[in-house]
Amino acid sequence: MHDPGSRTWLALNVEYDGSEFHGWQIQPDVRTVQGEMEAALERMVHERIRIQGAGRTDAGVHALGQVASLNLRWDRDLRDLARGIDALTGPDVSVTAVRPVEPGFCARHCATGKLYRYRILSRPAPSPTRRGQVLHVRAPLDTDAMRRAARLLVGTRDFSSFRAADDEREDPRVTLQRCDVVECGDEVHVEVRAPGFLKYMVRTIVGTLLAVGRAKIPAGDVERIVEARDRSAAGPTAPARGLVLVEVFYDGSRPPRPPPAASATTSSGP
Amino acid sequence: MHDPGSRTWLALNVEYDGSEFHGWQIQPDVRTVQGEMEAALERMVHERIRIQGAGRTDAGVHALGQVASLNLRWDRDLRDLARGIDALTGPDVSVTAVRPVEPGFCARHCATGKLYRYRILSRPAPSPTRRGQVLHVRAPLDTDAMRRAARLLVGTRDFSSFRAADDEREDPRVTLQRCDVVECGDEVHVEVRAPGFLKYMVRTIVGTLLAVGRAKIPAGDVERIVEARDRSAAGPTAPARGLVLVEVFYDGSRPPRPPPAASATTSSGP
Repeated sequence: MHDPGSRTWLALNVEYDGSEFHGWQIQPDVRTVQGEMEAALERMVHERIRIQGAGRTDAGVHALGQVASLNLRWDRDLRDLARGIDALTGPDVSVTAVRPVEPGFCARHCATGKLYRYRILSRPAPSPTRRGQVLHVRAPLDTDAMRRAARLLVGTRDFSSFRAADDEREDPRVTLQRCDVVECGDEVHVEVRAPGFLKYMVRTIVGTLLAVGRAKIPAGDVERIVEARDRSAAGPTAPARGLVLVEVFYDGSRPPRPPPAASATTSSGP
Repeated sequence: MHDPGSRTWLALNVEYDGSEFHGWQIQPDVRTVQGEMEAALERMVHERIRIQGAGRTDAGVHALGQVASLNLRWDRDLRDLARGIDALTGPDVSVTAVRPVEPGFCARHCATGKLYRYRILSRPAPSPTRRGQVLHVRAPLDTDAMRRAARLLVGTRDFSSFRAADDEREDPRVTLQRCDVVECGDEVHVEVRAPGFLKYMVRTIVGTLLAVGRAKIPAGDVERIVEARDRSAAGPTAPARGLVLVEVFYDGSRPPRPPPAASATTSSGP
């Protein structure tokens, strides 16, 4: 068991359906994942606990493996923390793992990479059982062209063409470690990994790759779009509902990372 | 194109999320898939059209590949029929394929087999993104024991122990062609195939296999449970939400079967 008297530093793995949330980050007067989880924690420990999410997902974006860090006084089994949060939040959010981390661990600043997946349903009919989790595209997609275009985006580039006008980040350069187009049954998945992303960057990459897949933009033009450093050069921003934060990466040794979909644990404290 | 003057016999593939439906079969004063589709058709062709579903799924049960037959006067592209129904029904139902069939084809009576899948989420935490589509079971499951028990159910047996008290079918014998326990990531799937099922039979099989998986019933006892021909001998009826009608089978040659998830077609008429 972790030390019962002092404060414990913890990392949580969090899964949520973003459909009914105004994103991760707490904001007044709207329902957010962070806000709902902090309210649950306050009811449990009678103290305002701030939790830090690795990625500030937009409204409507889902997560399978969001990571959140917090520090609190907790002298019970860590599984009870997960169960308590689950019981006091809506059915659209769940803590899938809890793990002690070293003091000072911050889910956001310690993250070395994030993997997002964008799910496109590529067939004539929509899918009622997957609605809200995929973007439905009726027109057939040229996935080979999408793959060629995706490869042009990998590397350290100025992604000004792919970010929202109001993005506040100073440096528009991002090292895109992966940008893959994967066919998966009747779905086409765009998977991107980077240490961090600019605002709407993933959804603008997807909107651009979709324009390539529908032969509205030649695959090779993506190079020109990047070099333009101008948002109007790229395709439209794809809707939030197809996007999911799959996993957050940390340096192997330092802050122990809760494995996705693993069980809550009560292993020894920090 | 099919003959524009006369009536056309058609088979539809239908996908639905059963969460907000009181099952497939039309009933007064409640929302059903058949009722919603027939109301949509009536608005489209200004005539009451009866559609016949292959399987009368219970309230809350989903379908990826329900098959429904109907005959109507339709002189436009068949894709417009699918799109029209989709436009006039809720987002939780969709026609995924339309195909002409020979006159007299009945989706229910011509069916030679139905494949159902029951999805069990086997992990400590629930899954917000799959809620309503799986049964969440916290306790670990002994899937080897479940598989041994499942094998004992295959064949032509009297399934009285596995049917609802008010089931109206005279003959309680069913030829269970398949009963498989399949591990699929953090899910355990029970897949059953038979020409037809007794009321609640699939869900009672699953409830019984779950009791085996949690070591509440020894796998070998399933033989004794079948022989008892007594509903009280079997396990509880598993909830509807994990169950999905995956596919309906027809004799290869005779009534052409719409392939699941295939595109709507305008191939020549019957």
